[in-house]
Amino acid sequence: MPPTNPARRRALTDAAIELLASSGVHGLTHRAVEKAAGLPQGTASNYFRSREALLVAAAERIAELHHADTAQAVDPPASLAEMLTDGLLTAATTHRARYLAIFELQLESARRPALAAVLAGLGDTAARITAGHHDRLGLAVPPEKVPALIALYGGALFTLVTAPPGAVTAGAVRDLVEVMVRGCAGGGA
Amino acid sequence: MPPTNPARRRALTDAAIELLASSGVHGLTHRAVEKAAGLPQGTASNYFRSREALLVAAAERIAELHHADTAQAVDPPASLAEMLTDGLLTAATTHRARYLAIFELQLESARRPALAAVLAGLGDTAARITAGHHDRLGLAVPPEKVPALIALYGGALFTLVTAPPGAVTAGAVRDLVEVMVRGCAGGGA
Repeated sequence: MPPTNPARRRALTDAAIELLASSGVHGLTHRAVEKAAGLPQGTASNYFRSREALLVAAAERIAELHHADTAQAVDPPASLAEMLTDGLLTAATTHRARYLAIFELQLESARRPALAAVLAGLGDTAARITAGHHDRLGLAVPPEKVPALIALYGGALFTLVTAPPGAVTAGAVRDLVEVMVRGCAGGGA
Repeated sequence: MPPTNPARRRALTDAAIELLASSGVHGLTHRAVEKAAGLPQGTASNYFRSREALLVAAAERIAELHHADTAQAVDPPASLAEMLTDGLLTAATTHRARYLAIFELQLESARRPALAAVLAGLGDTAARITAGHHDRLGLAVPPEKVPALIALYGGALFTLVTAPPGAVTAGAVRDLVEVMVRGCAGGGA
């Protein structure tokens, strides 16, 4: 029977996220994870039978943390531009390690079809959740533009987390958001 | 005296790009590069004294290939939307390995300040070249929007090269480009 201590599992996956950010995908091993989490040798293999299971668990934990934050961020509702600006700024600063980690996993998934399938599933769920936020908040984005907005938002975040630290300013983020929001608004081409 | 056979240097850096795409940044070693290029052991160290020098040379070669392509792509001039759509589609399909490679280097640069400085310099040069294309072609992007457009374009490319292969369609790319182009157009906010 696999171990089911949720707090311990979270400690392992949170350590995995930090390792992905600090050492890259190659630095993510069972031994490194249990060491970083201060847990005895063998713990990580008890929870994650293979390296791929470890990569998948890190991706799922990132998605969980991401959705917990966005659920909080959209209540009370703000304008779309404010919401995207706050989201990108916080993601690229406070949560930079988390998003560096997911981008490490995205690049690794180009070489690992099983991981790619998991990320695609997480992406679909995220897209549904995001579309739900847009509906509930009555945001001014036509539904058919939401996929493009999600793709551009994710891409902008990659640009921001890999930029030199000083380059991530509220002004620079607002410039990106302004283009995305205006580009998504309804009306003629 | 360092060796200066340009064809051999290109063969090594081109092999480095393929390795970055196929094996990730950790797969890029002197030995792997000279092996992939079919050159004798020790050749890569003669050209690149350190691993960082090898990473930098790969980044410079990617920039060189990128600029050679964009110079060709903008002559004869097309509309901004056509130009961006063609650019993104070709980059995400024909030249996918090249852009996977630069994104590997971008993530690695978050852990390697010397590489980050080189990439920032290459980025500044690319921004100047892009602004020059815009000027020459009289494209309908206000100059102050060009940095945001470049950031969104690069981010969109990351999203595309890490998407499942079937997801990169002309229609999906056109949707992204439409948002970017409309978002950059002049007029009130």
